[in-house]
Amino acid sequence: MKDLLFSWVERNRDWTLNVLEEYLKIPSVSATGEGIKEAQGFLLNLLNGLGFKTRLIETKGNSLVYAEFIVDETFKTILFYNHYDVQPAEPLDEWISPPFSLTERDGKLFARGASDNKGSLMARIAAIKAFIDEKVQPPVNVKFIIDGEEEIGSPNLSEAVENSKDLLKADLCIWENGSKDEEGRPEMILGCKGIVHAELKAEGGRQDIHSSLGTMIPNPSWRLVWALASLKDKDEKILIDGFYDEVIPLGDEEKEYIRHIPFDAEEKLKLYGLKEFILGLADKRLLLHHLSSPGLNICGLSSGYEGPGHKSIIPKEAWVKLDFRLVPDQKPEDILRRLRAHLDKHGFHDIKIENAGGYPPARTDVNHLFVRLVAEATKEVYGKDPIIYPWMAASGPMYLFTQRMPCVSAGVGNPESNIHSPNESIYIEDLFQGVRHIIQIMIRLRTTTD
Amino acid sequence: MKDLLFSWVERNRDWTLNVLEEYLKIPSVSATGEGIKEAQGFLLNLLNGLGFKTRLIETKGNSLVYAEFIVDETFKTILFYNHYDVQPAEPLDEWISPPFSLTERDGKLFARGASDNKGSLMARIAAIKAFIDEKVQPPVNVKFIIDGEEEIGSPNLSEAVENSKDLLKADLCIWENGSKDEEGRPEMILGCKGIVHAELKAEGGRQDIHSSLGTMIPNPSWRLVWALASLKDKDEKILIDGFYDEVIPLGDEEKEYIRHIPFDAEEKLKLYGLKEFILGLADKRLLLHHLSSPGLNICGLSSGYEGPGHKSIIPKEAWVKLDFRLVPDQKPEDILRRLRAHLDKHGFHDIKIENAGGYPPARTDVNHLFVRLVAEATKEVYGKDPIIYPWMAASGPMYLFTQRMPCVSAGVGNPESNIHSPNESIYIEDLFQGVRHIIQIMIRLRTTTD
Repeated sequence: MKDLLFSWVERNRDWTLNVLEEYLKIPSVSATGEGIKEAQGFLLNLLNGLGFKTRLIETKGNSLVYAEFIVDETFKTILFYNHYDVQPAEPLDEWISPPFSLTERDGKLFARGASDNKGSLMARIAAIKAFIDEKVQPPVNVKFIIDGEEEIGSPNLSEAVENSKDLLKADLCIWENGSKDEEGRPEMILGCKGIVHAELKAEGGRQDIHSSLGTMIPNPSWRLVWALASLKDKDEKILIDGFYDEVIPLGDEEKEYIRHIPFDAEEKLKLYGLKEFILGLADKRLLLHHLSSPGLNICGLSSGYEGPGHKSIIPKEAWVKLDFRLVPDQKPEDILRRLRAHLDKHGFHDIKIENAGGYPPARTDVNHLFVRLVAEATKEVYGKDPIIYPWMAASGPMYLFTQRMPCVSAGVGNPESNIHSPNESIYIEDLFQGVRHIIQIMIRLRTTTD
Repeated sequence: MKDLLFSWVERNRDWTLNVLEEYLKIPSVSATGEGIKEAQGFLLNLLNGLGFKTRLIETKGNSLVYAEFIVDETFKTILFYNHYDVQPAEPLDEWISPPFSLTERDGKLFARGASDNKGSLMARIAAIKAFIDEKVQPPVNVKFIIDGEEEIGSPNLSEAVENSKDLLKADLCIWENGSKDEEGRPEMILGCKGIVHAELKAEGGRQDIHSSLGTMIPNPSWRLVWALASLKDKDEKILIDGFYDEVIPLGDEEKEYIRHIPFDAEEKLKLYGLKEFILGLADKRLLLHHLSSPGLNICGLSSGYEGPGHKSIIPKEAWVKLDFRLVPDQKPEDILRRLRAHLDKHGFHDIKIENAGGYPPARTDVNHLFVRLVAEATKEVYGKDPIIYPWMAASGPMYLFTQRMPCVSAGVGNPESNIHSPNESIYIEDLFQGVRHIIQIMIRLRTTTD
């Protein structure tokens, strides 16, 4: 069966490339709203044509495309999470070929969305078409949930998933995208950190005041600085009471996976133009700290006079944009409550918390049978053990799925895919390897009796 | 003699007003360079006509106007410091009458520079013309040094004064301007705080980096926050080693003068739209702290993303604009050296000090005979004891003069003069009282045998 299906992949390269080419022509930029309806129509049409039952899930924003191919109610079900929206293509003059026209060059396919996330979705659709064309009964039920607002933070996904709980029921979620590392090893990501965004604001007089009065009038910049310094010390320890209480220490398997993640400190320092990492660390202990620790980051600071030269004022206000990165089992609402309590406890009643929001971390049990099966399928297709990230340092709405089922990333990217940047691309061969990967995962999932 | 001279003031109101009107027509805005040469020519011509020896003192910027009227080498000499430049008149649409056209309204004279500083200079010139017209030998030698860059921070004054030491030799300096307070009491200011401007800068990667790496990559915003919090604590204590070492405690007379300065805490809070002052103080202790303490103020802070919404980055840099306010005998070079030592001692070698500069505080001995004489002359003309500020909280280049002689402010302003703002004005009667004030100071100075 596998050989037949894999040979389909070879025999139908043109079909796969042609459909991907049409899909990439649609400039479905969620930031501008362009091409959104067109992309929805394209996917509904394509998946309908393959025999899927499809529908749009309406939200306050761009609708989600839902499609299901139920083979047998007793079979396991895979849920593919993807998104049809893309980042804006700007700056356009840095593209070697037009962003919304698939161009082949040096064994690569260039276009906005080639990797993030249209190529990876195409691999999944092609995998299913292989079964259909070869009249092999798919060994699992398949569902697609295709987001139209991932690139603007999926503001309506949570509500849509909550309202479509039954529809989205499945045994395994394959996350939107994935990548090989620098040495061609496939990465498998099982979760991600959560995030809390918040702004802290300190207010002073009704306008800026001459700084000669600084020995009399409270300065909101100083208030903010003192409040911030009370939140995290120079050893990166977050000083909010109970902040670490819900952190579940990494299990031995998770630590073991992290130890296997390649990490070249020197190269990373060079890449970012840095002299050193935090805490004086530069080895696997840094990586372990990085992935296992929650964080508190300053994204932006502003107060008073920011022009050239000097202006002697007490600013009328000062604010900071923060983000917390959460690890299992920290929850945004706890963090925000504790932040407020901390500020009050330390005498910063005057400092307001504004524009706060976020979502929890996502974790898949690394010992889950399906995680092992996907890892085996990956090794079978790629010929290499996957690099397993118990979770990634970045944040995403994966928690909506990991709350209900194991979740594993898979995709056709590579470290030079330039996602979110000009000249986004994937390797042609990675696309077809990606198709085989999905076929193999489906086959593997059938063989389980879990 | 006094009566004759004072009657000259009344008989020559039109002359004084007409000359001031011509002078105020010149838009001598140092920020733009407009009208500078014209103002110089006007003053040289006017003072020459009165019998002064005049010259321009060249600098790298706008020349200073120097004029002297030496009556007798054995007489005491008064040096008047003034400036012929004015603040820009913008925003123009907020002026009720055109800024560069003297307009009389409700007993007031409106024009840019009416108070700061053309009106006060006019009072001084008219006082001397009284002696000349009435053929009364002036009882003191008179020198004028008239700055053309005061409104842009007098960047070349220090060098000019240093190069003209002998020319500017005098026994008493009368500072550029002065004001009555809300209850019509004349203020006398004997000095001012010094200032140090500096920017602190922390640098990170070569560009902003995704904030998910915040548990690995040092954040320059945090470095800056920690460095700032190490400089001053929540009790407003500046934590730099030796910072207070050169502070000379206030003398009993100085404290007594400060106790006599009117201070209405409630009214000030209302004015600025504040709930409270620093340190929980709201009485004369606050004023004493305010005037006697050096300060460290944040004028501006900037780092990373400052637009709307969230952007999850580790900023590539962070900086702060600081100003220190110095009291006698603190020196800018000591403060900057100690600041660097503090940062190094606390592990902030990475934080750079940039664009640093400043000047020392200015102090006149409150017990100096000439201070007493000016105070007496003031009471004689205004009928009220002056409010004496041992020094003011603001900073200025007065130290260039207090290093060599006692220095006392005098002028024709009032609390609603709107200096630096639209609709700048003085009361007509204050102008003539100002002329009499200068005449009386000159007469008083003659009577001393010091």
